[in-house]
Amino acid sequence: MNILNDSNENLYIEKITEIIEKQDILALRKYMEELEPADVAEVVEELDEELLHELTELMDEDDLASLMEESDDKMRIQIAKSLNNQRLLVAFQYMQKDDIVDMLGDFPIGRRKEVINLMKADERKIITTMLEYPEDSAGGIMSTAYIALKEDLNIAKGLEKIREIGPKTEVIETIYVINDRRELVGCVDLRKLLAAKRDDKISDIMDAHCISIEPETDQEEAANLVSKYDLNAIPVVSKSKQILGIITVDDVIDVIVEEYNEDMLQMAGVSKEESLDSRLGSSIRMRLPWLLVNLITAFLASFTVKLFESTIEQVVSLSAIMTIVSGMGGNAGSQTMSIMVRQLATDKLKWSKCVKPFLKELLLGVVNGAATGLVTGIIVYFMYGNIYLGLIVLIAMIGNLVIAGIFGFLVPYVLDKFHADPAVSSSIFVTTATDVLGFFIFLGLARLFLQLLI
Amino acid sequence: MNILNDSNENLYIEKITEIIEKQDILALRKYMEELEPADVAEVVEELDEELLHELTELMDEDDLASLMEESDDKMRIQIAKSLNNQRLLVAFQYMQKDDIVDMLGDFPIGRRKEVINLMKADERKIITTMLEYPEDSAGGIMSTAYIALKEDLNIAKGLEKIREIGPKTEVIETIYVINDRRELVGCVDLRKLLAAKRDDKISDIMDAHCISIEPETDQEEAANLVSKYDLNAIPVVSKSKQILGIITVDDVIDVIVEEYNEDMLQMAGVSKEESLDSRLGSSIRMRLPWLLVNLITAFLASFTVKLFESTIEQVVSLSAIMTIVSGMGGNAGSQTMSIMVRQLATDKLKWSKCVKPFLKELLLGVVNGAATGLVTGIIVYFMYGNIYLGLIVLIAMIGNLVIAGIFGFLVPYVLDKFHADPAVSSSIFVTTATDVLGFFIFLGLARLFLQLLI
Repeated sequence: MNILNDSNENLYIEKITEIIEKQDILALRKYMEELEPADVAEVVEELDEELLHELTELMDEDDLASLMEESDDKMRIQIAKSLNNQRLLVAFQYMQKDDIVDMLGDFPIGRRKEVINLMKADERKIITTMLEYPEDSAGGIMSTAYIALKEDLNIAKGLEKIREIGPKTEVIETIYVINDRRELVGCVDLRKLLAAKRDDKISDIMDAHCISIEPETDQEEAANLVSKYDLNAIPVVSKSKQILGIITVDDVIDVIVEEYNEDMLQMAGVSKEESLDSRLGSSIRMRLPWLLVNLITAFLASFTVKLFESTIEQVVSLSAIMTIVSGMGGNAGSQTMSIMVRQLATDKLKWSKCVKPFLKELLLGVVNGAATGLVTGIIVYFMYGNIYLGLIVLIAMIGNLVIAGIFGFLVPYVLDKFHADPAVSSSIFVTTATDVLGFFIFLGLARLFLQLLI
Repeated sequence: MNILNDSNENLYIEKITEIIEKQDILALRKYMEELEPADVAEVVEELDEELLHELTELMDEDDLASLMEESDDKMRIQIAKSLNNQRLLVAFQYMQKDDIVDMLGDFPIGRRKEVINLMKADERKIITTMLEYPEDSAGGIMSTAYIALKEDLNIAKGLEKIREIGPKTEVIETIYVINDRRELVGCVDLRKLLAAKRDDKISDIMDAHCISIEPETDQEEAANLVSKYDLNAIPVVSKSKQILGIITVDDVIDVIVEEYNEDMLQMAGVSKEESLDSRLGSSIRMRLPWLLVNLITAFLASFTVKLFESTIEQVVSLSAIMTIVSGMGGNAGSQTMSIMVRQLATDKLKWSKCVKPFLKELLLGVVNGAATGLVTGIIVYFMYGNIYLGLIVLIAMIGNLVIAGIFGFLVPYVLDKFHADPAVSSSIFVTTATDVLGFFIFLGLARLFLQLLI
């Protein structure tokens, strides 16, 4: 099997284009065997709509199923569009329930109803139940392809069941144990099962303390539990303890990556819904509000400068230098802030443990402020020929970097205490502080010692 | 088994403190059984040095081993410090090799050599080889607890082996297949093995195309492969194809989280080595260089303003308004930039696919610039009573938000083409552009129409 990489991707795209144009089903089958499904999906993404449509007509339903499972949301819908309901339902037979639910969630409501109504009664029931959970809850991402054995089964019978159901499940390393009411009563490691005596009962060797979550739980919390306790999967149970599904570790990886991308975007005031190919209208709707919020803080800084207009009128060089002081404060502030945000993301933080690092940040503000202030002061002295101007820059820089330390530390801490996400909104408060107070200190000092600057 | 949470953590801390003070070994054992090892590690982290030392004296070596496996790097070293070499080596018997290697890597060099010299010859050989791989390479994080079966074994014998070795391995779902020279020739899913006929050979049912990596590969690439192809683990093989170890999916989660934290910190110019309790000296060494780099860009912006000093002298209100234009450009620039960085992280991007989104960003700059510029222009008009000043702000805002779109889009794209990490260094270039060009457009327009402003 070959792996797709930058150097062979174009080759594989050409190859499949040729196959589609020749309608060569045999070559297509060979092609699909040669590549991993995830790679086939990557190649297919490069095809234009017409070629894609012709490709779906050449493919078997089980290949279509694995293609859809590996494709991203947009691609899946495009593939589904080019299939009629009958072929789609056949393809669904080969797919995991959580993927089907995911796809149906993105369908236009009319087609969704149509397809669901054509399903068999028992399948329809599972799918409609799963569709009711929010997309980013445990219920929304859980899979129903797990192994659950009755507690009173003996090991030999259990192994037989595993052999039989195993190929259709996502996780085989952990077997879930249920009672007659389908309540989760424990779990057992396959290693233990393989080593056990054949006529022991499952309940004899199971671990009765099995970490589980409810379907309403946020997907991020589910991911944290799997990652913290190094689980292969975490079972999802109803309030009455009946097992509903499991969340597997590969879904957990997807959740972590998704939440990470969300954080990155939200920090810059971009909605997680937006991507490079969002339409202009929706991009405006999603980005303009954040810019308007920022406009308020920009005006706050501007008002501060306005307070000192008469001073700037007398020493106009202040206007060029003040932006250095405010800008450097912003940079230092984001340094402290990111360390704090990272700390808060991995750990709770008690105030008693904060005193020492807080004092260190203040001291760091003094030292880094003195270093950058000294460089700036010397350059300013040589540019404008006034030693006092240089001194004022030095002092203002120290002051603003201490302010950066204080706000960079406290803003995320306080936001976290109030259960707001510090990653998202810290930045705007910290920048406001370093802008407003940076201008204020520098221009205030300049007004105070105006006689020395003229 | 109970799970640790905010509400019961203090209780568990008090409980263990009491147990340690009473030296109650039986209660300790019960305590350890009641909590997950990961939670025990979290509680122990809250103890002071003296209590921790007393605790390690009360604990069995196997409990110590699981405590060290679940603790963070700093904690592990502290525990190891309070153990003599003999107890440490006993504890190592219960630990995974990759965790041992991780710990030894953080030891003072003297103690590391001491401990390694006391190991049995075969173990010493494995450990020293693993220690040679960089910490963030596949070799540095791989585990040796996998199952490898000879290809000519029959299924019955294979299952027997799995039953025997299984309990000591990290992954049981995938079995690796080797030939007489220990070269990896394939892998087989345990489900398939369980279902196969007892006298078939392993080689009959194995998948001969098994994705593997070399020990020098970067850990991030290993993580990407496991995540893309939904593997339980990826085997690490030498140049001559001999299997050396595997990287399991729970290590992959750790890698993803680690790289994510690194990105977040590096974006703000903070080293991944730094944490809240780094010492002042090392914090200065790690943060000052980035501030000095930023100082250069701050001076670039300052020089731009200086070019227009004579204009500002005549219309001093420009100094208060110019910071709004530059600031808003910076905000809009980071919006475009984050979407681009996110896109580049998940996908390659061909220029042919960029044209449309690039044009959209320009248009978005015009629209968002017009919206924020209009608000700003109106406020400025009412504050300063000059309609032309308001108009100039409007035009400058549109110009700078278009610039933000251009640079926010192109900077990450170009950095990525030159194989630099766009997440890390995009921000400084984009901000420089929006600062310098923002000032230039606004003050340039003001100079051009100076007669209307006075």
